[in-house]
Amino acid sequence: MAGSDLAELAKRRGFFFGSNGAYGGTAGFYTFGPQGAALKRNVEDAWRDRFTLKEGNREIEAPTVMPEAVFEASGHLEGFDDMLVACGECGASHRADHLVEDATDVEDAEALPGEEVEALIADHDIACPACGAPLSGEPVEDFNLMFATDIGPGDSQPGYLRPETAQGIFVEFPRLKEYARGSLPFGITQIGPAYRNEISPRGGLLRLREFTQAELEQFIDPETDEPPLDRVADVAVRLYPATAQAADDGDYLDTTIGEAVDEGVIGSPWVGYYLGVAQEWYERVGVDLDRFRFRQHLAGERAHYAADCWDAESEVDGDWIEIAGFAYRGDYDLSKHDEYGDDAFTVFKRYDEPKTVERATVDPDMSVLGPEFGGDAGAVAAALETLAARDPDAFADETVTVEVDGEPREVDADVADFSVEEVTENGEHITPHVVEPSFGVGRTVQTLLAHAYETDEVDGEERTFLSLRPEIAPTDAAVFPLVTNDERLTDLADRVAADLRAAGLAVSYDDSGSIGRRYRRQDEVGTPFCVTIDRDGVEGDGPETVTVRERDTAAQVRVPVDELADELAALRSGDEFAALRDRYGAVATDVETN
Amino acid sequence: MAGSDLAELAKRRGFFFGSNGAYGGTAGFYTFGPQGAALKRNVEDAWRDRFTLKEGNREIEAPTVMPEAVFEASGHLEGFDDMLVACGECGASHRADHLVEDATDVEDAEALPGEEVEALIADHDIACPACGAPLSGEPVEDFNLMFATDIGPGDSQPGYLRPETAQGIFVEFPRLKEYARGSLPFGITQIGPAYRNEISPRGGLLRLREFTQAELEQFIDPETDEPPLDRVADVAVRLYPATAQAADDGDYLDTTIGEAVDEGVIGSPWVGYYLGVAQEWYERVGVDLDRFRFRQHLAGERAHYAADCWDAESEVDGDWIEIAGFAYRGDYDLSKHDEYGDDAFTVFKRYDEPKTVERATVDPDMSVLGPEFGGDAGAVAAALETLAARDPDAFADETVTVEVDGEPREVDADVADFSVEEVTENGEHITPHVVEPSFGVGRTVQTLLAHAYETDEVDGEERTFLSLRPEIAPTDAAVFPLVTNDERLTDLADRVAADLRAAGLAVSYDDSGSIGRRYRRQDEVGTPFCVTIDRDGVEGDGPETVTVRERDTAAQVRVPVDELADELAALRSGDEFAALRDRYGAVATDVETN
Repeated sequence: MAGSDLAELAKRRGFFFGSNGAYGGTAGFYTFGPQGAALKRNVEDAWRDRFTLKEGNREIEAPTVMPEAVFEASGHLEGFDDMLVACGECGASHRADHLVEDATDVEDAEALPGEEVEALIADHDIACPACGAPLSGEPVEDFNLMFATDIGPGDSQPGYLRPETAQGIFVEFPRLKEYARGSLPFGITQIGPAYRNEISPRGGLLRLREFTQAELEQFIDPETDEPPLDRVADVAVRLYPATAQAADDGDYLDTTIGEAVDEGVIGSPWVGYYLGVAQEWYERVGVDLDRFRFRQHLAGERAHYAADCWDAESEVDGDWIEIAGFAYRGDYDLSKHDEYGDDAFTVFKRYDEPKTVERATVDPDMSVLGPEFGGDAGAVAAALETLAARDPDAFADETVTVEVDGEPREVDADVADFSVEEVTENGEHITPHVVEPSFGVGRTVQTLLAHAYETDEVDGEERTFLSLRPEIAPTDAAVFPLVTNDERLTDLADRVAADLRAAGLAVSYDDSGSIGRRYRRQDEVGTPFCVTIDRDGVEGDGPETVTVRERDTAAQVRVPVDELADELAALRSGDEFAALRDRYGAVATDVETN
Repeated sequence: MAGSDLAELAKRRGFFFGSNGAYGGTAGFYTFGPQGAALKRNVEDAWRDRFTLKEGNREIEAPTVMPEAVFEASGHLEGFDDMLVACGECGASHRADHLVEDATDVEDAEALPGEEVEALIADHDIACPACGAPLSGEPVEDFNLMFATDIGPGDSQPGYLRPETAQGIFVEFPRLKEYARGSLPFGITQIGPAYRNEISPRGGLLRLREFTQAELEQFIDPETDEPPLDRVADVAVRLYPATAQAADDGDYLDTTIGEAVDEGVIGSPWVGYYLGVAQEWYERVGVDLDRFRFRQHLAGERAHYAADCWDAESEVDGDWIEIAGFAYRGDYDLSKHDEYGDDAFTVFKRYDEPKTVERATVDPDMSVLGPEFGGDAGAVAAALETLAARDPDAFADETVTVEVDGEPREVDADVADFSVEEVTENGEHITPHVVEPSFGVGRTVQTLLAHAYETDEVDGEERTFLSLRPEIAPTDAAVFPLVTNDERLTDLADRVAADLRAAGLAVSYDDSGSIGRRYRRQDEVGTPFCVTIDRDGVEGDGPETVTVRERDTAAQVRVPVDELADELAALRSGDEFAALRDRYGAVATDVETN
């Protein structure tokens, strides 16, 4: 299947399309139409079910606009940049690293200093893709990818659209730990929009300026907390470790989560646990596991604080795309906010038994320090306290020297009143570590559509259909009165549609065109079951019946109306259609039309 | 109940709290904690079920960032302002109209020109609420409430965070009508964030800078489409019409939707229909109808294009707050986008029978016009065509005069080749009208919490509880092992919690503290059912049982473990606990604790 077929279907059938078409379109923004929004929501619900509810985690919803201080702490203000080169001729902006990668053998131009990229542009006579003018001599600059705005009027403060949902979780850790009653491990999830002001957005849902993330921040005590690895130890996975990527003949490693963790291929058991959970979840929602792998980050790809990182990748249109990332982030995030913020981003870890420890203290005599050091007396006292904690031996001599404002200050040891006390400590404040599974929802949707897109032949006619899982399909069932000129059929069809809706199913009602055309329409949007109300079902003495047609096999069964809602609900929850066929028996297709 | 009690509970128990507390807080932004996010999501799901699925409407998801052209068309760029006055002394910004309303008898200062507001500030010696400096002499300016940003780098275009979800629907109408196969009426819904850069945000969820809307745009043919009013004709409503608000002794009108529409109190049957649907929905999710009304907009309150507007209002802390608006917007929105955008924001309305109409046409002889008018020949021909359509009689004489660039141009009638043809028309392009029910999700959440907040006495102890409906409550059920030192109980509790989660229920597990304290904790977050695993349930020969306690009555029944998930799911769907009590019989409370 060519990607363009799917893009055409996505637009024509209401999955997704570029936004603001009537105003010339806005690069990097897509709108989910009725089918796509329903599909996306089903993916989000399935993710929530697995990563929040079933894991006993908690979901929050934080604002998308956040103040500058948050991104000073997180490092995004300083380092969330792409390399920009603007054409002096036409003004178009480009990713300098991408231009270099396309025109040279350089594989990771983003890792190079700007000057080197400038030199490569000059050396290879790289031209502006928009107008063809040479880009040699144009400066390569860092462009921050956060959308900036102002919060409030005149006395406003700078704000940014969050580049990841995670910061909305990290920044509220001091409160969130209270909801967990101060006890590790606990996990917080969030599903919502994130923003990156891409220099050159790509087509489709792959590189958008606004997109949806589903993130889980698992807060753990690195010394004691272990994941329930046995739950996923036997899950078979295809890994693409960093070593295999570096080797000329590197190959996939087909193994299990348990083995991969045991053998150290996956460095962190927590990362391993969530890779296993994710693999099971991807299979459940319909990712083709033959077109799926976990790829380990190369050393140069990882953030400096991340001990081990793996991406979930799916094959779409011949390319491998990242659809989720799994990172062991250590204490980086909470330490930074602890440093920059006013609150404590730590938890109190109680010892099993109270510990008696020696603690060096000073109690400086301010009536001596005051006259001697004047306005600096407080600073001298503070420096003595710091020194006592850090280097008690410094108080062994008769005088102690501390530095204040770069000046050495000498104090009598007596005046400092140094002593060592035994204190009982019940615990200590520790900074939790973070394990972060982070999913791209739009990219998952794109993958599910690409992997579900199929063509075959039914009744001698070629058809396109989406073999989406019933749990994920935008519409649970379509209802068709076979003809519209028989009130018995249209009345029953109305009633059936209302019943199914009352049972919580997403129902599409269609009475226009031949029955074959109506089936094709539903096939193209992946509706797993079509319910047709025909004359056979309302005539005769028995209970009213309808036919139910399964999408992939085009097989039909005749089901009593009274049992329909329960049967469809069970099919949506994962029951096999084959069982239904065994119970009710297959019937021939209906051909009568208006 | 004082609002501060609820705010304290909301923060302590994880419903919602001001964002970015560690960085001094950011006015106008709130984060929904685990309980609040779940409650909010349940409200959204219930809204979706009623206003999208049950109505057969379609939901989309559009980006929150939109380009400037959209807001030029919608009028937000020009008119989405509040009156700002900044203190010359401390720099604080204030809503000028609010200051005037607080200090004078003026009730609707927003409707006054800026100069009058400036004069009122001077006349009444209004001072800066922040620092006390006089504001007399400070300019009152229009402040646009949209958050502005730049889309893309260097060659960027201005963008804004959408001030309402509706524009994301309107702007895609040309595509959305295709999904409806060009046929009216159809409805499009959207639930998502919207933004208003308020000058002075209020506390709580009432006036936020980022908030969630649930909007429905119902597109109709104003000449022929009628709502299914009979479905809600008997719904009893409390109306507060404009006339009653204006009268000194004006009172509520207790009536039904059917009567109010018949008697013209509600001007539009479509608005009436959705008021009825909304009232039923508010009752379903738990709004106290004794603290609820529909208030009609006063003439001065409505946008000029809106024929009839009603707000749903709830009473919270003694104030009436707007929680939804229902507007008949005519063709305003689509006409504006049709005017500003490149695509047609119309639908083709087929006539019942083709109509034969006379159409005047010209076929100007360019071989004559060309030499005569040179570069203006094309403009002259176009002017002739326009004239033929507008005033066919102008072609009765030998010469015809048209104006091009302000100059009269004379053309021989023969050269224009004027004729009148009979053409058959199958239909016409019409601009649909829009009926818009628009709900504030956060304000609904705030209302539900305020109306559910209750205190009483249980076992001689005072308690606070939230009587949230089971469909809406953040947690469906809590599971408690009565003691933790008996593995039979903890094992069964683990199993019960897993079973309930597998059945799709949101489950909280709690084994810490006395059973009474655990009940209180769940009462405070509105968990409708607590499941306790005790010794009686695992000892003896019968099947394993657990107790189920209902929140509001604190009554308990003993239920077999095998039947628990089904029973709780039924209770969540609306079954009465009383029926469960009749079936299983009440039991005494459990008092044993760790």
